[in-house]
Amino acid sequence: MKIVILGLGAVGKGILETIAEKKLGLIVTGVADSKSACIKEDGIDIRTVLTTKKETGICGNPSLTADDVIATASYDLLVEVTPTDANSGEPAYGYIKRALGRGAHVVTSNKGPVALYFNELQSLAQDKGVQIRYEATVAGAIPILHAMQHDLLGNTITALYGVLNGTCNYILTRMAEEGLSYKQALAEARELGYAEADPTYDVKGIDAGIKLVILANTVFGKNISLDDVEITGIDLLTDDALRLAEHQECTIRLIGEIVPKKDLFRISPRIIPKNHPLVVKGSLNAITISTDMAGELTFIGKGAGSIETASAILGDILYIRNEQCMD
Amino acid sequence: MKIVILGLGAVGKGILETIAEKKLGLIVTGVADSKSACIKEDGIDIRTVLTTKKETGICGNPSLTADDVIATASYDLLVEVTPTDANSGEPAYGYIKRALGRGAHVVTSNKGPVALYFNELQSLAQDKGVQIRYEATVAGAIPILHAMQHDLLGNTITALYGVLNGTCNYILTRMAEEGLSYKQALAEARELGYAEADPTYDVKGIDAGIKLVILANTVFGKNISLDDVEITGIDLLTDDALRLAEHQECTIRLIGEIVPKKDLFRISPRIIPKNHPLVVKGSLNAITISTDMAGELTFIGKGAGSIETASAILGDILYIRNEQCMD
Repeated sequence: MKIVILGLGAVGKGILETIAEKKLGLIVTGVADSKSACIKEDGIDIRTVLTTKKETGICGNPSLTADDVIATASYDLLVEVTPTDANSGEPAYGYIKRALGRGAHVVTSNKGPVALYFNELQSLAQDKGVQIRYEATVAGAIPILHAMQHDLLGNTITALYGVLNGTCNYILTRMAEEGLSYKQALAEARELGYAEADPTYDVKGIDAGIKLVILANTVFGKNISLDDVEITGIDLLTDDALRLAEHQECTIRLIGEIVPKKDLFRISPRIIPKNHPLVVKGSLNAITISTDMAGELTFIGKGAGSIETASAILGDILYIRNEQCMD
Repeated sequence: MKIVILGLGAVGKGILETIAEKKLGLIVTGVADSKSACIKEDGIDIRTVLTTKKETGICGNPSLTADDVIATASYDLLVEVTPTDANSGEPAYGYIKRALGRGAHVVTSNKGPVALYFNELQSLAQDKGVQIRYEATVAGAIPILHAMQHDLLGNTITALYGVLNGTCNYILTRMAEEGLSYKQALAEARELGYAEADPTYDVKGIDAGIKLVILANTVFGKNISLDDVEITGIDLLTDDALRLAEHQECTIRLIGEIVPKKDLFRISPRIIPKNHPLVVKGSLNAITISTDMAGELTFIGKGAGSIETASAILGDILYIRNEQCMD
């Protein structure tokens, strides 16, 4: 299977390294970063490209762009791992649309286009007889979309509850365990690289809300946008609220909820018993789903990180490849 | 897809009810219990068979047997949910072999034949170009085999740790939380139906050991038997040991471990921190896997129950059916 990769940050490089190391039988015919691109019909030399990128900061020819890769390379599948713009979804949205239009599968870690244009991209993929997969957009390394789409066939999923933002979870864990104030815990999260310089997206619950939109549209067949999600962040949470929860053997977590029958889509700080499976520590993510037959199932794992994201991307690529083989 | 079902206990009946209710597009051409069978080329009437079973104790014609169903019915897939005999694997082993021999897929909840004859059954299935699936044999409703086989492609699983026996977990939870002695907790588990009249298989770690064999052979490509698993049960555990663990913010759980590189296969009571994801309550099961890219992932869910087992069986049936459709 021939693939091209757009975006050579930590995730893109991790994918390339793994393909080279594990000999997965994937031929990379093109890569692009924000300043250059490299296209080779019979496969680029991954080691050379990675070295060039490391030494010069760019991966290939500065007169070539991601658009050239999409339009002229020969590939069965596009891997789109450029930075996310949650407002416009660009430039990822355009890349994905053009690749699907050429009849290529798409695997992306980009929440923007998936949350904003899910139905359009999904029906374009269907028209072209290809797949768009995006396991990496939700809950990092946890294969939650795979699990709900393929592993529980016959079950009806009646509700979903999840810790979908590792930054908030880290802050809440530290507030509860060390008695830190919100400001102190946020400062610590920034120092450790868990929170961005501008943590608004995380602490106001917007990042978790975007993931909830993706889950609702993908798994529950909804057609919602971020405006349909009732969102309360953790930025106004007081130390007192946490202490009160602790008093009752409970703690507070930022929980995303979907109850499809009630069209309930909510992100909010919730008081939950300390021994509940969703009470995970630090920057972990956790998702509990309620089903009619299998009961409650909980999935816990790392919610972020470049190698974890690369893992989710590879899982999608190889899943599509295996399905192709069976045709 | 045409299927036949051997075994009409709670699980078999649950599968039939779900097929009838959810209109899954499966045609049931034969069923058998221990005393009778019912075969119909164009599909049995599920409601009638369930009513007959309820009213008379048998599902069909007393002069027909499970063997007749296997040999003469028309089917693409055999569902084998007869009682387990962990020593001989019979009669399930014979049923499964003959169905595979006829070129039918097999889905089973029967630990005996899968633990005892994995390689033989697997290669017979391969020769015939069909599948044998057995998600229900391990960790109840948790789709752990699916997750490890299909959802994490590209990852190498380097270790597995699991709470694989709900009875032991219930006993240990009650000992820790209520200060019960082992004997008291066992008596309670029996009263509530979590433990068999003869709880030896559970409390001596044999049931968990059998599941570990299935995991090792399926997911890690090993060829081990129960003799290769180092097993210590919970029956000799003292209240003092638990109290000592509690003192250090820890507790004790019966943990199954696989470290494939070291050929380590062990079931033993282990002291683990109370806030570890594997410390689940009551009769739950939990499995943590370590991977090279996705890090640690934990799956938690109900380890037993007839509807939960039916869920795992249906997941396997529909997975095979979906793969067929793509061919």
